[in-house]
Amino acid sequence: MSTSLDTVLAHLDSTHESQMQRLFDLLRIPSVSTDSDHDADVLTAAELCARYLTESGFKAAVRETTGHPMVVGHVDGPPNAPHILYYGHYDVQPPDPLELWDAPPFEPVLRAGANGEQIVARGAADDKGQLMMFLEALRAWNDVGGGIPIRATVLLEGEEESGSPSLDPFLEANADELRPDVCIVSDTGMWNPSTPAITTMLRGMVYLDVTLHGPSHDLHSGMFGGAVVNPLNELAKILGGLHDASGRVTIDGFYDGVQNPSDAQLTEWNNLGFDASAFLAEAGLSSSTGEAGCSVLERIWSRPTLDINGITGGYGGEGAKTVIPAQANAKFSCRLVPGQDPAAIEAAIRRHLDQALPEGCTWSIVSHGCNPAIQVPTASPWLEAAQVGLEKIWNRRAVLVGCGGSIPVVGSFQTVLGADSLLIGFGLDDDRVHSPNEKFDVASYRGGTRSHAAVIASMAAMGRP
Amino acid sequence: MSTSLDTVLAHLDSTHESQMQRLFDLLRIPSVSTDSDHDADVLTAAELCARYLTESGFKAAVRETTGHPMVVGHVDGPPNAPHILYYGHYDVQPPDPLELWDAPPFEPVLRAGANGEQIVARGAADDKGQLMMFLEALRAWNDVGGGIPIRATVLLEGEEESGSPSLDPFLEANADELRPDVCIVSDTGMWNPSTPAITTMLRGMVYLDVTLHGPSHDLHSGMFGGAVVNPLNELAKILGGLHDASGRVTIDGFYDGVQNPSDAQLTEWNNLGFDASAFLAEAGLSSSTGEAGCSVLERIWSRPTLDINGITGGYGGEGAKTVIPAQANAKFSCRLVPGQDPAAIEAAIRRHLDQALPEGCTWSIVSHGCNPAIQVPTASPWLEAAQVGLEKIWNRRAVLVGCGGSIPVVGSFQTVLGADSLLIGFGLDDDRVHSPNEKFDVASYRGGTRSHAAVIASMAAMGRP
Repeated sequence: MSTSLDTVLAHLDSTHESQMQRLFDLLRIPSVSTDSDHDADVLTAAELCARYLTESGFKAAVRETTGHPMVVGHVDGPPNAPHILYYGHYDVQPPDPLELWDAPPFEPVLRAGANGEQIVARGAADDKGQLMMFLEALRAWNDVGGGIPIRATVLLEGEEESGSPSLDPFLEANADELRPDVCIVSDTGMWNPSTPAITTMLRGMVYLDVTLHGPSHDLHSGMFGGAVVNPLNELAKILGGLHDASGRVTIDGFYDGVQNPSDAQLTEWNNLGFDASAFLAEAGLSSSTGEAGCSVLERIWSRPTLDINGITGGYGGEGAKTVIPAQANAKFSCRLVPGQDPAAIEAAIRRHLDQALPEGCTWSIVSHGCNPAIQVPTASPWLEAAQVGLEKIWNRRAVLVGCGGSIPVVGSFQTVLGADSLLIGFGLDDDRVHSPNEKFDVASYRGGTRSHAAVIASMAAMGRP
Repeated sequence: MSTSLDTVLAHLDSTHESQMQRLFDLLRIPSVSTDSDHDADVLTAAELCARYLTESGFKAAVRETTGHPMVVGHVDGPPNAPHILYYGHYDVQPPDPLELWDAPPFEPVLRAGANGEQIVARGAADDKGQLMMFLEALRAWNDVGGGIPIRATVLLEGEEESGSPSLDPFLEANADELRPDVCIVSDTGMWNPSTPAITTMLRGMVYLDVTLHGPSHDLHSGMFGGAVVNPLNELAKILGGLHDASGRVTIDGFYDGVQNPSDAQLTEWNNLGFDASAFLAEAGLSSSTGEAGCSVLERIWSRPTLDINGITGGYGGEGAKTVIPAQANAKFSCRLVPGQDPAAIEAAIRRHLDQALPEGCTWSIVSHGCNPAIQVPTASPWLEAAQVGLEKIWNRRAVLVGCGGSIPVVGSFQTVLGADSLLIGFGLDDDRVHSPNEKFDVASYRGGTRSHAAVIASMAAMGRP
């Protein structure tokens, strides 16, 4: 196997230019899943991914759902090979605000960065660049490694950035076809540019979109001001009261069941040498704002949050308009940690909003997602096999870390397929995911592609459990 | 004089159709002064007003300013006639949200309403319909009354809805030309459809546009949430804290100098038979929200307010985006009452915002207006002359009322020209000024036009003071 892996790695090195072309072709497709104007683009991206799989020896197809399609590919591998399911998503976040991009978001470019060349485009890191790494590793094994040495299923989703409404139904309908020994999910980050990481804790999320309705129409603030309810005043008061002076969320029951990290875990985190200043500098900040008495790592890995993601109401144009608006809207989301029940949190928020409802007003509330936090078992032969592969490429073991973001599919794989996930990704904190000028380092891409090739070898060496 | 007035009134009755045509021609011009796309329309409206004045015997011209032009017209009248300055504004509020209009805002239509026919268009009541009433009264005196029996100056502004930046400089530069014995400002309302009103109290205003800047760019709420400052969370907290539980503004010094209405004034207001339920019903509400312990009339006439007029920040599109925005903006305004110093209030707000500035953030603050409340003397021969004219038309004396809105020009006339103003207007509470489907009752228009004609007669009868 080692000879084959060396051949595969050499092939990956020598075919970098054509890999970049394939990645750029995918990045050029504005597959924004939250915006129905881009439905055709989302489908085009799915079709291109399916073609890449077919070219790599997979039986692959674009599979319909009631929303955006899934791309599924299978390769059998040798007898008794372990069955690995690879997951990624080919949809991307909306690119706005467009005026803050240095170049158009869907015209990928290479530019010089701190760690060498960077690929700049919406989706470069989240998640097209990441999914292309395992697709290219599988392609190389197929082309020059004597065939893919594992039984591989690839599942690529087109709704990750819009709440994954079709994912669970699709997994349930196709569970027998998809059920693997273990999943590899590539949508997370490295510890730093030279240290790989496996993410074992992920925060969950509840996302609500609330509109407070007051007067039947917009009013003149002179004629009516002082005597009528102003939905913007009231919304600000309600949202502004969701945190107390110590940065804790004031919603009754919000912290019920929260599992604090063990002392061992906290010690491990303290030993990681996390550079909080550098992390904050990525956000243009010199200090951290958050829950009192918690370190920055705890704040992003093991503490729940409530962030307002958008407020819209009244006049937002040039100059002034003396209006009391008929309604005001907010989008806000809570990041959840192990032990919190997302449905209970959503119910608690709705109860809180109902109790705070101002006289003369009504709420309309829409949910955009509700999923639990994830804790992946750290004592597993699959995780150890991944460590062997990663160590071959990086000459050091991966560190086990938390992640502040949500990857709901990991929960679905556990619940529906009964399979654990290895979260092996190659993003960096400064990738500006979801922001203008999103980028992915070419060095991360190269190392990640080689890593997937090596992990394929070490998984194959395990055989079936 | 009485014979002439009767002739003038009969002429006004018989020329209603041509008056409507002239008003509709003015309403068709989208003279939105806050939107530079409409600069040419604002000029067109000014030119039409000047033409109307010239047709009525005035020496009239469109006069340049550094912003939108003024329209000024003069007629000398007989020797020793009192000099009356008429003020109105030919600019209008933006018509958005357009989708809530039943018909295009700049295509005026007549439709049936509660008090008979209504003129529906942006500017129908505020203020094109109002200024056309005194223009038509002056035209009728010129055409059939034996000439205009007063010395009249007409001043029409094109920036009232955008903070009147050119008004004070223009008044200062032309004070000798413009200085009257008294001003008549027609931009207010009647007490009810059958009772005229003279407004003797007007609230002032401070309008601020504030942006809270935090992270250098939009951030992913999973990667950073809980550890970094969120400008939307912070802005909501700051704005939400601007009122206490009793509805009072919490800014230090906000109520300094506030003059409470006298007991006599409160008694007069109580005797007006104000129908709070009907007033609230115009806003689609069944209860009043405001400062504890104050009546609805006090809340809109004699108490200061703080209303948020717009908030913009983060993602406002379809679906969800898990973003922590780099900045958040709010527009808000305070209505001021006699005794409050607008500059001191603005300074107090800025101090409050500075003290509330969250760590890691900066403010940028723009002022869109700062003017004091107005109290017009109620014991004046001019007011009595106006009462005589109004009583002739309505068979009852006008009630003396307050007004929640701001008409900064009244303060400028006092300060720059040393002249008091009579606020005689014919709007109604249900006119939807600044809102979709703004309207003006034809009955109000007819009565208002006749009223101006009668007030001209009673002013002329006074002679010079």
